[in-house]
Amino acid sequence: MKKPSTILTVGSMAFDSIQTPAGKADKVLGGSVNYFSVAASFFAPVQILGVVGEDFPKSHLDWLSTRKIDVSGVKYAKGQTFHWVGSYEGNMNEAKTLSTALNVFEHFNPELSETHRHAEMIFLANIDPVLQTSVLDQAKGPKLVAMDSMNFWIAGKPDALKAALKRVDILSINETEAALLSGEKNLKRAIDVIRGMGPQVIVVKRGEYGAILFSPNGIFIAPAYPVDSVIDPTGAGDSFAGAFMGYLASHGASRDLAKSNPAEWDALLRSAVVAGCTMASFTVQDFSLHRLMRLEAKELSARQTELLKMIAVG
Amino acid sequence: MKKPSTILTVGSMAFDSIQTPAGKADKVLGGSVNYFSVAASFFAPVQILGVVGEDFPKSHLDWLSTRKIDVSGVKYAKGQTFHWVGSYEGNMNEAKTLSTALNVFEHFNPELSETHRHAEMIFLANIDPVLQTSVLDQAKGPKLVAMDSMNFWIAGKPDALKAALKRVDILSINETEAALLSGEKNLKRAIDVIRGMGPQVIVVKRGEYGAILFSPNGIFIAPAYPVDSVIDPTGAGDSFAGAFMGYLASHGASRDLAKSNPAEWDALLRSAVVAGCTMASFTVQDFSLHRLMRLEAKELSARQTELLKMIAVG
Repeated sequence: MKKPSTILTVGSMAFDSIQTPAGKADKVLGGSVNYFSVAASFFAPVQILGVVGEDFPKSHLDWLSTRKIDVSGVKYAKGQTFHWVGSYEGNMNEAKTLSTALNVFEHFNPELSETHRHAEMIFLANIDPVLQTSVLDQAKGPKLVAMDSMNFWIAGKPDALKAALKRVDILSINETEAALLSGEKNLKRAIDVIRGMGPQVIVVKRGEYGAILFSPNGIFIAPAYPVDSVIDPTGAGDSFAGAFMGYLASHGASRDLAKSNPAEWDALLRSAVVAGCTMASFTVQDFSLHRLMRLEAKELSARQTELLKMIAVG
Repeated sequence: MKKPSTILTVGSMAFDSIQTPAGKADKVLGGSVNYFSVAASFFAPVQILGVVGEDFPKSHLDWLSTRKIDVSGVKYAKGQTFHWVGSYEGNMNEAKTLSTALNVFEHFNPELSETHRHAEMIFLANIDPVLQTSVLDQAKGPKLVAMDSMNFWIAGKPDALKAALKRVDILSINETEAALLSGEKNLKRAIDVIRGMGPQVIVVKRGEYGAILFSPNGIFIAPAYPVDSVIDPTGAGDSFAGAFMGYLASHGASRDLAKSNPAEWDALLRSAVVAGCTMASFTVQDFSLHRLMRLEAKELSARQTELLKMIAVG
């Protein structure tokens, strides 16, 4: 087995205050790179770029380090950590934002160390596309780049977003965002338009219904693993992305492979989607990173086997 | 290959007036047994029990007969055919009923001929559970019984519904109905409760997200085939059921097989769900039975192969 590639990720580190039909949690750990990195660390080494305020617990960074997550790119800045307040109702597929205090995140400017510059894979979590581009400018030829975005940037900074998209291999997005980005309501037509913007692989996140992978070799539709009780969907998408990228990193995936062996690339992507769906199903079973932080590799593997049985026809 | 079992189905024959985001259709052919029987006839012989009014075109029954569908159980009654007026908006997963004129359907009383009594499989489409029971009372030991129902009967005739359910092997239902019937919001818990009422196999219909099969051997989650454009979802559930039952009928499925070989039974059910999803995807591509009536076996088979590729991991 090959040595897994290192994944650099950049995005938010936050406190979340969340209300769901199952309960509420106040100022718990959140942020895309937290979810992404913990999920990815089951498969591959990860480097984080982020910014936190003086109120952010050093103990959390220490804990990430025990998982061999490189936190040297996390900067402490004067002020408070980004704080998001949101709620989920009925259909838990979409969060309602009640308030956003960007705090130190407002002036986030990711700077890559020499080590970061040589990361083999990059995951640009959902942040200003100008910063996403800045990370790519500083990096030295990553062999695979994936990106997440959201309505806010699609509507607010379309040109910057499109400039970043040109340099991206894999885009993760939901159905509403795909429609907004492409101007096409029908998903298949939307994907065709988005392919023209750069990314050849698009993973469409569908919340409780799983995900659809559009690869050059075809479509793969994966369901979410059905959990007994969804407590909090926050972080499902980012932990999906973490396991997805981690799986690819641990199996030698790259842009070159996509060209040289499309069938193997497609097979890797499909398994990576299953890994992502499995991971996300743990995330939603508790608030914050609670479930992920106590997740054991053997539980992950057992559930993945179970999910594979749930989608096997024969 | 064994001779396929004959399926007897009982339910509505109707005219539908439908408005969807894609357009409208006025007084077109509809009704559960129409959709069911045309779909099932790709796989197995079908017998219909239903009632129509004097305004119902004889030519349609002739057309069904050309597909070797036995229409001897369709009665012409004095009056007008059942007429349903409905619309679909935005999310096309649920119809809004604008008006229902039961007409001759109000006094429907299914009577089985000697031939009907010996049908090997029965599909009780969505009608009054008292009538569903009456059909089972008249039948002579079918080897497999499936049933569909809806909120109207679950809320309105719970006792009659539960009496019928006791004699049913397979129930097809959607998530809202499963919650209403069981009193459990969580789907997995709802299924456990429903199993206690009789049916050991439950197919949960999820509209554009496909279906989940709960069999004694496990869960199978199948996506809908993604079509370029959904014109009218009416009949998707009944044509799903038609192909599902037809597939089972053509592969020797029975209650006895479920007992003697649970693994084979489970494998048959999974393939039957894929057949159902494939068929339903054609139904929604046009109003009424239009797409099904011009569907060729080779198109069905090609799309099924395509759908199987979309859910294959390796």
